[in-house]
Amino acid sequence: MKNISTRDKKHLWHPLTQHKLHPDTVAITRAKGALLYDDEGKEYIDGIASWYTCVYGHCHPYIAEAAYRQMTQLDHVVFSGFTHEPAVRLSEALMEILPDNQQKLFFSDNGSTASDVAIKMALQYHFNQGRKRDVLIAFEEGFHGDTFGAMSVSGLSVYNGPFSDFFLNVKRIPVPDGTNSGEVIEQFEEILRTENVAGFIYEPLVQGAAAMKMHDAEGLNTLIRLCKEYDVIAIADEVMTGFGKTGKNFASEYMEQLPDIISMSKALTAGMLPMALTSCTQKVYDAFYSDDISKGLFHGHTYSANPVACSVALAGIELLRSDEMQENIKRITASHRRFDEVIKKHPKVARTRQLGVIYALEIKVDTERYGGLRDKLFQFFMEEGVYLRPLGNTVYILAPYVATDEQLQKIYNTIERALNSVVD
Amino acid sequence: MKNISTRDKKHLWHPLTQHKLHPDTVAITRAKGALLYDDEGKEYIDGIASWYTCVYGHCHPYIAEAAYRQMTQLDHVVFSGFTHEPAVRLSEALMEILPDNQQKLFFSDNGSTASDVAIKMALQYHFNQGRKRDVLIAFEEGFHGDTFGAMSVSGLSVYNGPFSDFFLNVKRIPVPDGTNSGEVIEQFEEILRTENVAGFIYEPLVQGAAAMKMHDAEGLNTLIRLCKEYDVIAIADEVMTGFGKTGKNFASEYMEQLPDIISMSKALTAGMLPMALTSCTQKVYDAFYSDDISKGLFHGHTYSANPVACSVALAGIELLRSDEMQENIKRITASHRRFDEVIKKHPKVARTRQLGVIYALEIKVDTERYGGLRDKLFQFFMEEGVYLRPLGNTVYILAPYVATDEQLQKIYNTIERALNSVVD
Repeated sequence: MKNISTRDKKHLWHPLTQHKLHPDTVAITRAKGALLYDDEGKEYIDGIASWYTCVYGHCHPYIAEAAYRQMTQLDHVVFSGFTHEPAVRLSEALMEILPDNQQKLFFSDNGSTASDVAIKMALQYHFNQGRKRDVLIAFEEGFHGDTFGAMSVSGLSVYNGPFSDFFLNVKRIPVPDGTNSGEVIEQFEEILRTENVAGFIYEPLVQGAAAMKMHDAEGLNTLIRLCKEYDVIAIADEVMTGFGKTGKNFASEYMEQLPDIISMSKALTAGMLPMALTSCTQKVYDAFYSDDISKGLFHGHTYSANPVACSVALAGIELLRSDEMQENIKRITASHRRFDEVIKKHPKVARTRQLGVIYALEIKVDTERYGGLRDKLFQFFMEEGVYLRPLGNTVYILAPYVATDEQLQKIYNTIERALNSVVD
Repeated sequence: MKNISTRDKKHLWHPLTQHKLHPDTVAITRAKGALLYDDEGKEYIDGIASWYTCVYGHCHPYIAEAAYRQMTQLDHVVFSGFTHEPAVRLSEALMEILPDNQQKLFFSDNGSTASDVAIKMALQYHFNQGRKRDVLIAFEEGFHGDTFGAMSVSGLSVYNGPFSDFFLNVKRIPVPDGTNSGEVIEQFEEILRTENVAGFIYEPLVQGAAAMKMHDAEGLNTLIRLCKEYDVIAIADEVMTGFGKTGKNFASEYMEQLPDIISMSKALTAGMLPMALTSCTQKVYDAFYSDDISKGLFHGHTYSANPVACSVALAGIELLRSDEMQENIKRITASHRRFDEVIKKHPKVARTRQLGVIYALEIKVDTERYGGLRDKLFQFFMEEGVYLRPLGNTVYILAPYVATDEQLQKIYNTIERALNSVVD
């Protein structure tokens, strides 16, 4: 029988992939903790926690057991008219860690749909009150997903030519980076004054797909405060940032002003299976609560609040709140800081940035997002047994919280050697 | 501690629900085979297989074991650049049951995203070949999901006022019902001749959300044939119809002309957890395969091809192909037919329809989709321990394939008693 990678080519169309240019895949057969293993037994440190999902480590037995118990008790039931304990317990657990003003939870299955739900909430919030507000504000390099609504607000979306005629009305602003904040705030308020703005969607403090680009908490705080002033719905996309990665449970906690809506996914289900949530304040919910049926949010996915996924998320939150994981987050944060002290002086490093366990390093060279150097770096890391996914000239680390000091050290050493040997 | 339904109200916002008008939920605590149990121990026959998902029965041990094994071996890994055996094996298993012309599989997480992916494939298929084609054709009462793309093509979507300014260009036609087919075909060809049509999206033969409205295979076959003539991408939304429900693995097998794209979800993962797929022909795939990176499909969800969901889907397909399930499908099909012979003569029955295990009955009365009679029927069924979800004046049955003859008989008896006692 042919090997897995060869069989893969026959019928699988991979996401975000031009198969003619990138025909080959590596077959992963098992995973444990911070490690992935391929079909030749080679081991890789999962330096990006499989797209920021399995933060408590791969195949965590506590999570697998919780899922299995649920699968033998109640696999699924329609979530319109019915409810179940895993959803209720998850809602109570989330209320303990979400920013205080969040009150209601709406389920979907991935970050894109969580964005589409958030956008629909913002538009209908105004519509239900008889106001025509149909403009959204978003950051220039934001990323919020690939469905039509989510694509529209994603400044970073690439190769969208065939679809852009159908995008929502979006005004884009740069992120406030501390040097430009006055201008950004002015531009933002000008849009609020002159357009019918329904909502403002942003990745708080760290833009994941933009290669972990970071911005200024004070500037963002002012933007959210202005939203309140103009009754514009502030939507924090915490799909990437949520569940401890920034050093707090949610990045929104770094600001005094809190968002009206928060979307979450990825680490919500600890890298075990898909689910997403859009939370909101009582104010948003109340705009839909009416004797008029048409004011409801007529959005629904079949597997909404899937009990198995809810049980997985619950077990994940228990792990997140454990002393072990909180210590791990502090340990990795400090470890990255020590690495940064050294590496930022490297002649090939242009700049570095860090928030919590998220660390990024820009190389002094210009390259395309998917260009040649990026591919060379990727290959080098893979050969060395470290899975990192550079974006353009940026190498970033977002390892599982259970990565050991030795594993972190191996990531650092590999990056340093790449700077010395791969970068011209 | 308060009961689950009371705790539910505090923080949960349910899909497709106006909470002021429908404040109460029933708490389901466990499920087995065709049965659901609430927190007072009351038992309900799941007459709609929890939105057409758990067709092999709730909490099937074969599926739960497969999922658990996978969760302890490889929970998840990024599906760009990596692959894994569960995805490869699933692709091979699907190729054995999908219509012959389907060649490639693209993963997402729910029916809405499977629709958005299908629509993006259709639009970009033409765009990549330098053609501006931006019109889609859809059936008047079709339903394809709730993201912006999916909403656009859903003629049935209700209460879409706040969003409709942002819909794609869609031309709607009635379904060919055998009496109007000539006109429908003429109207369809007129649109093909005069508009830049990229694709035609339809639920083949049975429109689920339109209360299992059925149409004519010959008429639909002609529409698909015309698509081929005009190089318009035919998209069969088999999210509801797939995996045996119509008496064949896919409803598309009833037509000689095969679709270019098929979307699937729901029973794909047997009611255990979320996943979706969009399959396509080699022709569609080839239009994206290029030395030009921008011709790729830059769409991707984090949990694409989640190994746990792939393992669940694989186990489900094995069950589908088992003698036991194939016998069950024939048994239920014949059972419905016998029931139909009697009930269609009932004075309060306007008309009935059936395809495979899907059975629908229209009551001789006009009511709103979510109106009073519908609620009364629903309450009556629930009191009797039968979970059915009437849509307007239509009561339909789509029970798990493992529903016993006694359970089917109880559903039939309950419907008959409802006709006699609930309908004026």
